[in-house]
Order: sequence, then structure tokens, then C-alpha cells
Amino acid sequence: MSFVTHLRCLGCGREYPADEVMNLCPEDNLPVQICFDLDALKNSGSGDIGYNPERKNMWRFGHLMALDPADENDARSIFSLGEGYTPIYPWSDYEPAKKHGFELWLKDEGRPAPGFGANPTGSFKDRGMAMVVSMARKFGLEKLAVPTQGNAGDSLAEYAAQAGLSAAIAMPDNTPLPILGKVAAYTRLYPGISLDVVQGTIREAGELIKEKYLTQGYFSVATFQEPGWRIDGKKTLGLELAEPAIPFNDGAWRMPDVIVYPTGGGTGILGMWKAFSELRVLGLTDGPLPRIIAVQSEATAPLVQAFEAGRQDSEAVEAGDTIAFGLNVPGGIGHFEVLRIIRESQGTALAVAEAEIGATLGRVFKDTGWWICPEGAACVAAIPRLVDEQHIRPGDRVVVINTGSWEKYLPNIRHYL
Amino acid sequence: MSFVTHLRCLGCGREYPADEVMNLCPEDNLPVQICFDLDALKNSGSGDIGYNPERKNMWRFGHLMALDPADENDARSIFSLGEGYTPIYPWSDYEPAKKHGFELWLKDEGRPAPGFGANPTGSFKDRGMAMVVSMARKFGLEKLAVPTQGNAGDSLAEYAAQAGLSAAIAMPDNTPLPILGKVAAYTRLYPGISLDVVQGTIREAGELIKEKYLTQGYFSVATFQEPGWRIDGKKTLGLELAEPAIPFNDGAWRMPDVIVYPTGGGTGILGMWKAFSELRVLGLTDGPLPRIIAVQSEATAPLVQAFEAGRQDSEAVEAGDTIAFGLNVPGGIGHFEVLRIIRESQGTALAVAEAEIGATLGRVFKDTGWWICPEGAACVAAIPRLVDEQHIRPGDRVVVINTGSWEKYLPNIRHYL
Repeated sequence: MSFVTHLRCLGCGREYPADEVMNLCPEDNLPVQICFDLDALKNSGSGDIGYNPERKNMWRFGHLMALDPADENDARSIFSLGEGYTPIYPWSDYEPAKKHGFELWLKDEGRPAPGFGANPTGSFKDRGMAMVVSMARKFGLEKLAVPTQGNAGDSLAEYAAQAGLSAAIAMPDNTPLPILGKVAAYTRLYPGISLDVVQGTIREAGELIKEKYLTQGYFSVATFQEPGWRIDGKKTLGLELAEPAIPFNDGAWRMPDVIVYPTGGGTGILGMWKAFSELRVLGLTDGPLPRIIAVQSEATAPLVQAFEAGRQDSEAVEAGDTIAFGLNVPGGIGHFEVLRIIRESQGTALAVAEAEIGATLGRVFKDTGWWICPEGAACVAAIPRLVDEQHIRPGDRVVVINTGSWEKYLPNIRHYL
Repeated sequence: MSFVTHLRCLGCGREYPADEVMNLCPEDNLPVQICFDLDALKNSGSGDIGYNPERKNMWRFGHLMALDPADENDARSIFSLGEGYTPIYPWSDYEPAKKHGFELWLKDEGRPAPGFGANPTGSFKDRGMAMVVSMARKFGLEKLAVPTQGNAGDSLAEYAAQAGLSAAIAMPDNTPLPILGKVAAYTRLYPGISLDVVQGTIREAGELIKEKYLTQGYFSVATFQEPGWRIDGKKTLGLELAEPAIPFNDGAWRMPDVIVYPTGGGTGILGMWKAFSELRVLGLTDGPLPRIIAVQSEATAPLVQAFEAGRQDSEAVEAGDTIAFGLNVPGGIGHFEVLRIIRESQGTALAVAEAEIGATLGRVFKDTGWWICPEGAACVAAIPRLVDEQHIRPGDRVVVINTGSWEKYLPNIRHYL
């Protein structure tokens, strides 16, 4: 009993059938996302969304999932490795929070904790790839391809290997060794997995995938190139910030005031925004949506430049040199939507200096024992400026998203620890 | 002005020229080691061994090195990535040491510390492979091959890649991903590096290397198959425990009373013993040599079984299942010599339960911040029994050798941390 109705282009609004296995909208070459009949869901007999807090992974959100675990056909396609329902840690004793009187929480997508779910490859990318591989099973796709800065490739390799699908992964030759190596190892251990290393960034990797694999019948699951699957996987990150079952929310559906998010392509922002928007349409929450803060590295900051210049979309920049490897994304086909969301939410975009990222990662590890990744550290490092510029205000409930675990960035970042 | 004179078989004593690029002794199929003219060195004009404490790597031991940094020809061959001169930490406040009144130190071959050298791949294997690749340069070898439980393969891949040599590496398919992956990644990044994964252990890897690579002109640098190079690389581990320049020794050459060492093939024990023996012949130290304690995992303990049964050599066992991957060595061509050394030193061999290894690794990390590896943790876990059985006694100066860093065993051991 899925409530998915159709796909809709984020640019021109053109609609496509829900079961169209498509890439970008052919009208304007912009991404599509999955639409639900929220009115029908709201008025359905059950009176709820099928939320199941006993299910310790991202599939706990029932009818709000693009594949509905309560639907027999969908359930057969769902391929879960335990992703999602990641820990969220109270952190209001962190100096800036204590000093300025705001509530601070860290959502940890990296290292699992007892009693929670566990992203199998230690990053937020697993939410999207669990959905991708489940959708591939639903639609009979057997060959998937992705260009990546690293974590998405690691994730697709894991899911494809376990599900017995083929996956072609292309990533930069300077990707941190635990990630590049994991995928390289999987090419030895699982016959369906292939890896190409490129000089450059995810952009050059994307060109290679197009030329070498899409011509061979591989389906592209690059950021936004698949029909909204990864957005709806990442949507669960937003749902987990709003759900009743965490201490954070005192038993009610409730949204944070501020979300600080490390932004490369921006799928997470689209996904979380979709979560909050759907919850509001369903009447489960009200009040303003969270202010969305996009954090980038000063080394590669196309979104920040576009935001500050008041532009509607980012312009491609030269790739930089950052330990926050996932932020080394010189452009993005969804950036126009990220910019729209940031502005609509009255958030902001800002860039953090490289030296601050490493120092913050080490300091957080020593102070808390959390294995935050450089991208998450960039968000933590941004907090003082966000306070100064009043993007974070006394009384706010602030969530920092830590998208992965530093263990995947060794040995590059070892000297910070 | 090298003092190397010849090679000598550890079994039959037969001698070979110092520049013979050989494998096992053809007489008895046992390993050879490198011999020095220690009398000439003792009586040489300089009156010292060319010890240079300013050189922050293993090449600080001058004329005692199998390639002498003071010799023009040798110096041209030496290929160093900064290996050796690793930190040694005082640890006498560790509960068993405090309680029973012995001095405890941890020699950390894994994670570097400021002011010391750094094993480039984070394990003790770098000492042997630095020597191997340097010798390969001296003798014009361009293709090296090694079967490995992991760290030795990682190390050879690094040195060969940086030196522009070819290296064929074979390892078990269940090798921890940071190691297997690193080598797999190097096969993509460096044209000379190749990797084969096998089902089984280093034993099966050895068979593959023999059939697939030695027939193609690769030179085997498997444990003890090269002419004593790795022993003399590991010798520096012993020299660093005895050298004057560390607080440990108060400015004199001096030996510890007890060395607790995780033992797979045993090259390290042969190397350290050679160091102490040479220092004694040179008159730099006197008194008894350290008691050598060989620690294995209960999962795979051929040495312990042979020691307890009073046998002269180990018998091959079935490989077990241990997180101390480097200890999963079911037999060893040098075990007869390890057993001889243990007995001569009045040491012992003992096996530690798997559950103890993981728990100890996590406890040491939380208490001290050290990134010890499962093999090192096995040694720490052995301490209470060594005290009970009086292999460690009040007043002893005890050194535990931690052979690597836990970062190379993720994600298998993450839940202990």
C-alpha cells in the first residue's frame, strides 16, 4: 500500500510515472524527486504513517518510505544492511553552547552505538545507497555506476556486493586509502565490483563513468542522476531528527531550529527538507522549518560563493585541496535547489579554513571520544561564526550532522588525533 | 667500509659469500643470516660502531647495519622512508607493574610520535622491508615477491612503489580491509605492484607466490627466504632497546631483562637476539641476555605447543580464527631457532585467549591513548600470567613490543575501542 504517486522535476515541475527508471528530466536536464499522496496518507484509515520505532534502521518510517515496508511487493525489494537510526548525542556542555545558551546535538552517521542502527560503511551515504540498491531490485537493474569523492563509492560497493549486483565505481586517485582501498579490495573479492581511479575530482570521475560504463548498459546512480532515490534515502536523516522516539523530542514529532550540514552535492539538504516539508503537510509538525546551514571548506566553496553573490545557482570552481574530501565537489546539478532551500529556511552558507577542520577533528575526538569526520569537523568549526552572525541564537535547538567516521580518512588525518 | 663478511646457515653452519643472492641453504633448506667481523669492528680505529643518535631512523646503528651508511657504495643503495627509531613509552604505573614492582615499557612500532622516526606503514615490518628493498637496489633485483598475513605485504608494497620496483604480494582474502585494501589500491596507483588474494593463510599465499611468481623471475623475500636481510632489518628493534640515547638506558648500552614479543614467523626474535649477541661480542654490554617471551593466540599456537612439548621444532597446525591476524601463522621455517633462543634465554612461550586480546586492546586505548594492535594487546594480556609464573619478577626491566597500529585492523576491532 505505497503512497508514492509520481516523479516530479525540481526545475520545470513536469511529472513522470512513479515507476519510470529515468535520469534527469529530459525537458530541462534537472533532477526529479519522488512525490507521495500525502493527503491520502493523512486521511488513510490507519491514522498514522506506519511509523515503527521498534525497527532499528531507516525503514522505520513506514508509508513515508519510497519503498513501503508494509507493502508486500516493496518489502520484497528492500535490501537493508541495518542503515540509519544513527545515534544522536547531547552536546550542550560544549563551550560555545554553554556560553551562548543554545541546545546542541550531534547526529553521528559514522560510528555506530549500542541500541541504534549502524550505517554499514560508516557514512551517511548508506541511506541513499540502501534505497538505490532496493530500487534496483524492484526494477530489475543489475548494473549500477557511480562517480564519487569516496564514501558513496564505498557504500555502493558494499550494497551491490552483498546484494549480488554489479557496480562500477570511479573515484579520484587521491581518495583516502581506507576508502579507495576498500573498493579496490572488493574488486578482488566480488566479481561484480569494478573500480576506476581518475586524476581530478568527482567531476572527472563522472565523465569516465559516462564514457566507459553508461554505454555498456550500466545505470547511473550519480548524485541526482537517479530518479530521486538517494534524496528519499537521505530523507530519513531528517525524519530521524523529527521523530518522537528520541530524547531530543520528548515523544512528539518536532523539528530542530538549526541544522548545520557539510555540503558537497547537497542531496542531504534536499532529503532533510523534503522530510520536514512532508511532515508539515501531514500535520505531524508545525512551526517554521529549521534554518539550514550549508558548510563547505574554503578550498572548494562553490555554494558559498553563489550564496554570497546572491546567485540562483553555483558556478563550477577549480577543485581545491581539503582533508574534508567529501566537500571537494566543484559544482553540483542540485545546487540551485540547495541555494533555494538555504534562503527559504533563512539559513546561510559559509566556508571554513582547512587548518580549523583538522584541529577541530582532533579536539572533538580528545574531548568526547567521537570519531567525527573532517566534513563534520568543518560544521563544528563553523559554530563560533554562526553564533557571532546570529545564525545560531540563545534558546535554539541546534543539530550538527557528522556524516562519517574519521577512520575512513586515515592516514591523512592521523596527526590530528 | 662494511664489516659484513659472509652468510651462514642457521642450521648446518655452512658459509656463503656476503653478496650471494640466495634463498635457503641448499644443504639443509634452512635460513641463512648475515655475519659481521665483530673483532675487526671492535678493534677498528674509530673505537665505536659508528652509532649516530642524530639520525632519527633505524640506520643510526652505523657499522652494525647490513648496509653501512658510512660506506659510499652501501649508502647509495639504502632506501629509507624514515623507518625505525620508534617511541618507547614508560608504563610502570600499569597496575600489574605497580603491584609487583617491575619496570614496564612499551615499544610502539605502530603510531609515530614527535621527535622519533616513523615506520611508514605503521608496523615493525618496515624495518625488514627497508632492508630488503635497499638490498634489492644493491644487487640489481627489480622484481620481489612476498606471501604475507598482511603487514609485510603492505610494507613491501610501499617500499617497492616508492623505490620504483615491482612487487608481487599474496595474502589471505580475510586480511583486515585497511591492509588488503591498501595493497589493492596500490595495484591501481603503481604499475609494478600486483596482489593475489588466497583462501587460507600465509602458507597458501606462499604456495601461490612460488607457482605464479618465482617461475617468472621474481625473487622471494618471504620470511627467511631472503638471505638474512629481514633479520638484520629487525635487528634494529633490539639495538633500539639497548642504545644509550633513550631515557630507558641512562646513556649506556644496556639490555632489558625481559622482552614480551608477539610471535608469528619469529624474524623479530632472531633479529633482536642477533642484536644483543653482537653487542655483547663487541663488549658494549655484558650480563645475561634478555629473557625472550613469545606470545601467540590460542587460535594458532604452534610455537607454544612445541615449547610445552619440549620439541626442537614446531609442527604445522590448522590455522585458527584470531583478530591478531599477524599471529595466524600455522608454521615457520625459523621456529626451530625461535625455540632455541627462548630456551637459551630462559624465557617461555604462551598463548592468550581471543577474548582477552580484544578486551585488552580496548582497555589500553582508553587508559593510555595508545593505538596498540591486537598482536601487541596479546602481549599485554599475557603479563599477569607471566608474573604468576615468575617469568616477570620484581625489579625486572620489561619491554612489551607493540608491532603495529590498530588502525590497520578496522573495522574488525572497532567495537573494542
